Amino acid sequence: MTLDAALKPHDRLAAALSDDLAQVTQTLHDYMQSDYAPRIPQVSAHLIDAGGKRLRPMLTVAAARLCGYTGPHHIHLAATVEFIHTATLLHDDVVDESKQRRGRPTANLLWDNMSSVLVGDYLFSRAFQLMTVTGSMPILAALADASATIAEGEVLQLTTARDLGATADTYIRVARGKTAALFSAATKVGAMLADVSAAQVQAMHDYGDALGIAFQIADDLLDYTGTDAIGKNRGDDLREGKLTLPVIYALAQADADERIFWERTIGKGDVGDDDLAEALRIMTRHGALAETAAEARRWSARAKAALQALPDQPLRDMLADLADFVVERLS
Amino acid sequence: MTLDAALKPHDRLAAALSDDLAQVTQTLHDYMQSDYAPRIPQVSAHLIDAGGKRLRPMLTVAAARLCGYTGPHHIHLAATVEFIHTATLLHDDVVDESKQRRGRPTANLLWDNMSSVLVGDYLFSRAFQLMTVTGSMPILAALADASATIAEGEVLQLTTARDLGATADTYIRVARGKTAALFSAATKVGAMLADVSAAQVQAMHDYGDALGIAFQIADDLLDYTGTDAIGKNRGDDLREGKLTLPVIYALAQADADERIFWERTIGKGDVGDDDLAEALRIMTRHGALAETAAEARRWSARAKAALQALPDQPLRDMLADLADFVVERLS
Repeated sequence: MTLDAALKPHDRLAAALSDDLAQVTQTLHDYMQSDYAPRIPQVSAHLIDAGGKRLRPMLTVAAARLCGYTGPHHIHLAATVEFIHTATLLHDDVVDESKQRRGRPTANLLWDNMSSVLVGDYLFSRAFQLMTVTGSMPILAALADASATIAEGEVLQLTTARDLGATADTYIRVARGKTAALFSAATKVGAMLADVSAAQVQAMHDYGDALGIAFQIADDLLDYTGTDAIGKNRGDDLREGKLTLPVIYALAQADADERIFWERTIGKGDVGDDDLAEALRIMTRHGALAETAAEARRWSARAKAALQALPDQPLRDMLADLADFVVERLS
Repeated sequence: MTLDAALKPHDRLAAALSDDLAQVTQTLHDYMQSDYAPRIPQVSAHLIDAGGKRLRPMLTVAAARLCGYTGPHHIHLAATVEFIHTATLLHDDVVDESKQRRGRPTANLLWDNMSSVLVGDYLFSRAFQLMTVTGSMPILAALADASATIAEGEVLQLTTARDLGATADTYIRVARGKTAALFSAATKVGAMLADVSAAQVQAMHDYGDALGIAFQIADDLLDYTGTDAIGKNRGDDLREGKLTLPVIYALAQADADERIFWERTIGKGDVGDDDLAEALRIMTRHGALAETAAEARRWSARAKAALQALPDQPLRDMLADLADFVVERLS
């Protein structure tokens, strides 16, 4: 195995696209400034310079390059996508009353909820200013649609939390809102910049959508089966009453005692120290964990299938490897 | 005096533009729907149907009509402007921990902060979707700029609260962010739809800007001198440590004792029952209230002066009357 092949797919993408991504980082810094309100760049930098993987802007840049785009606007759109993502993180941490993000205290803890809400609004506005640089109304419409889907998904998650009647369909809709809508917008607008067919734009969208859903399912499965990663603790979703796919599958086959368990924990939020182990026993008994992993793999396969419509280039292989990697974590 | 003349200017504008405004209300209702998250229209309707004066959408419609626009897009832009306004109200009430708005409990009290943050984000996204209907990139850029200015002004207000060093310049900047940026964007984009000169677009912008600043100064003055209006209590700004123009003018002439008073109240937030009366005594002694009223009148006059560049029509007279009305409340 060569050194290059040993790198994770997003590291290989980052290396292949390093010049573009350096420009994206520069654009993020340029646009997060404020002439009058120094708290704006302070709060923004806390998230933007926190060492995130820049996965979403990388998807935009990769999609644009894979589709043969040679202009400058993929940089603006990649920064747009990262600003929308950062704004939603700031607002999510207020909504969830989170104290940690990426292993560091959240902005709402370091400053206050007000700063997080308002700086989020500012970055969201800056995102729209950045889009207008492209001069493309269809691209703006795609990103406005994605933003609406994100907020709608978050409200749906909020209002269906602790609702044991939530279905796998509802779960996918929430996952699309929370994660996949921005992934698919990121890849789609990259393709829209280039001179490719509508079918290829759709394929790039479908790749992002399926990748995002696979990513969210994997994340939710690891919340039960993973090791404690930085900034995220195993069992958070159980404690917070989030009805994720492993629970939905286990609930579908629950006997009377198990139903009482889920009603007490997910439904009422009465979660003790032994309940995570008990949840895992119930899930294992019904094959809910394996079923969830299989569903994640189906979405990963859909992402790779969508790529077939796109040019056969090294970047395409890296995007396919990324779809594999998302679910490799599960075995 | 005829019945018509006895009506307040915004009532006369509402009557003159009633067909357009009915379409705006219909568009607001159409776009605040959600297929999956019923809480979105519930929270939205709580504000949008609360009987606000629809001043901002009225400005967009009036500007478009005054400039001779005959197409359909002023409706979309008026709804855009009202959605941006509604989103900022939802977020402001979270930031200020407000309990009342327009004489009713706030959304954050009736539902929760999370719903207010996320539904605000949704309406903000819908606002951008509505803009794209016009197909005009310069209009989108103007509204994105206004949104950034609003958020920046709010952050500036947050970070300069209780700071006795804040100047009249800072105050005007905050007022522009809180209020005037959306007023001026509302009037400007109405004009941009029509086939008028750049000078007339600028004049329509300047009218909205000056009207908004006059409006904010008047509002802040009435916080000290007005009668308790529905949903707003006299003395709120003193209790909340907001450094508004009457305080800034009084501070500029404060003797040592008065400075101690302002440091304790505005600076440290230690405000007792008698302090509003004492604040008024100090302001009156230095002419700070009269000076504030005069500044509001200067901005009102600027608004009217800007209208001179626009067609001499009944709508223009109503807009001029509106500028007068904003400061008439002060005498």
